[in-house]
Amino acid sequence: MENNKKPYILISNDDGISAPGIKHLWNALHEQFDVVIVAPNSEKSGAGLSTTMFKALHTFKVKWPNDTVAYRVTGTPTDSIKLALSSLLERKPDLIVSGINRGSNAGRNILYSGTCGCAIEGALRGFPGIAFSCDELDDPSYENFEKYIPDIVNHFLKNRPPFGTFINVTFPEKTLEIKGFKMARQGKSRWFESPDKRQHPEGHQYFWLGGEWLFHEEDILDGDTHLVKQGYITAVPIDVTELTHHDYLEKNKQDFENLYKKF
Amino acid sequence: MENNKKPYILISNDDGISAPGIKHLWNALHEQFDVVIVAPNSEKSGAGLSTTMFKALHTFKVKWPNDTVAYRVTGTPTDSIKLALSSLLERKPDLIVSGINRGSNAGRNILYSGTCGCAIEGALRGFPGIAFSCDELDDPSYENFEKYIPDIVNHFLKNRPPFGTFINVTFPEKTLEIKGFKMARQGKSRWFESPDKRQHPEGHQYFWLGGEWLFHEEDILDGDTHLVKQGYITAVPIDVTELTHHDYLEKNKQDFENLYKKF
Repeated sequence: MENNKKPYILISNDDGISAPGIKHLWNALHEQFDVVIVAPNSEKSGAGLSTTMFKALHTFKVKWPNDTVAYRVTGTPTDSIKLALSSLLERKPDLIVSGINRGSNAGRNILYSGTCGCAIEGALRGFPGIAFSCDELDDPSYENFEKYIPDIVNHFLKNRPPFGTFINVTFPEKTLEIKGFKMARQGKSRWFESPDKRQHPEGHQYFWLGGEWLFHEEDILDGDTHLVKQGYITAVPIDVTELTHHDYLEKNKQDFENLYKKF
Repeated sequence: MENNKKPYILISNDDGISAPGIKHLWNALHEQFDVVIVAPNSEKSGAGLSTTMFKALHTFKVKWPNDTVAYRVTGTPTDSIKLALSSLLERKPDLIVSGINRGSNAGRNILYSGTCGCAIEGALRGFPGIAFSCDELDDPSYENFEKYIPDIVNHFLKNRPPFGTFINVTFPEKTLEIKGFKMARQGKSRWFESPDKRQHPEGHQYFWLGGEWLFHEEDILDGDTHLVKQGYITAVPIDVTELTHHDYLEKNKQDFENLYKKF
């Protein structure tokens, strides 16, 4: 193909292959890059890094403009990336890009997010990735973000994150004027559920998990959650391989190991 | 209740409330501690931190020995913890304990594991937790581990991990002689899928995700994955709040932020 010299980018998401966010991501990328799409069949918001083990995963080709190769997978975002990398793609991608997610994945939302799940799965296998989300739940203005995406992608293709690290990019809500790009630390705020309790006609109780934004008063000024609310497009390098709390380990190691003497 | 002075422990898992591992965990804990069980209705292995947003979550009381209060939840491990902490428990637990998982959650399996998902959900809300798993898929010898669990639990009740940190404990396979307790770093090895491709009668392809253990040659000697294979019971403090890769951030911040000048 004449496209062979362009970087090869795997596009996915967690809102499902029919969601508007993935179309805008494709709009932003398909001219400068060689793209392929592998995404969940249906909405999988909140899927995190969940993986399907006891159900078969069916894959179907989907018609997409400009003859872009696109597959839908009857599984989670992580399943989609696993199948793409192991079985569906003709060659190794240079980058995994997921989104644009409806709602912010900044701060401590990362591990709940299926959009980040795509990038985490890639990072754990040594593929660099970028997860895009926007701080807007109702009718996000994805089209406003398209122009920034190719430069962000090119930057991280050139400045490849180390093994196990992906980039979490968040766009501000549409009422804010964009002030610039910020490379930031992971903030502390996140979505939080206050389950709504109801009664089933049979008598037992059931619940809906409804999200509200939990803003930590003490959130850090150089964190993404704070900066997004100021109008910055933030990028946070997230390491998913080195999670050990070393200080606690050093302080408690000896006492814990001595416990075994009684057995 | 006469139990009011005992620490209050929330027990959960990802193999489902009928799995043998959770019964052995209860065996180990119910005499020394005041326990309550809230766990998924059915097996949710590989659920990670996935959360159910667009389905109602039904909860049902389950009969359990010694009048232990137990609920099954028609959702994920994380859903169970969310409902337990927000709605089902009569007071705040002193500790969340999940497991004992069938199969190892050591190394880089943490983020895929629903057993760890229970502890991560707690840690993100400020509740300390311990996730127990064993390095054995077929007929694990859970009963061999019961005697160690109360001391491990008491240790971490006394030496409370900081906000956002939980303890990931792994028991070795039954053919190994137990050599002791080790507080360890997170290892590098993990489960890895080589999807098995088949053909549906309708003609399209489908896949099964089947796991095999991917042992990194370069795995670290003070990591849990290595030490478990030597016969140690390992405990790794895992921080799920500070995931920023600070070195990469510092090195790339200026270049990334300068990119915005063209817009």
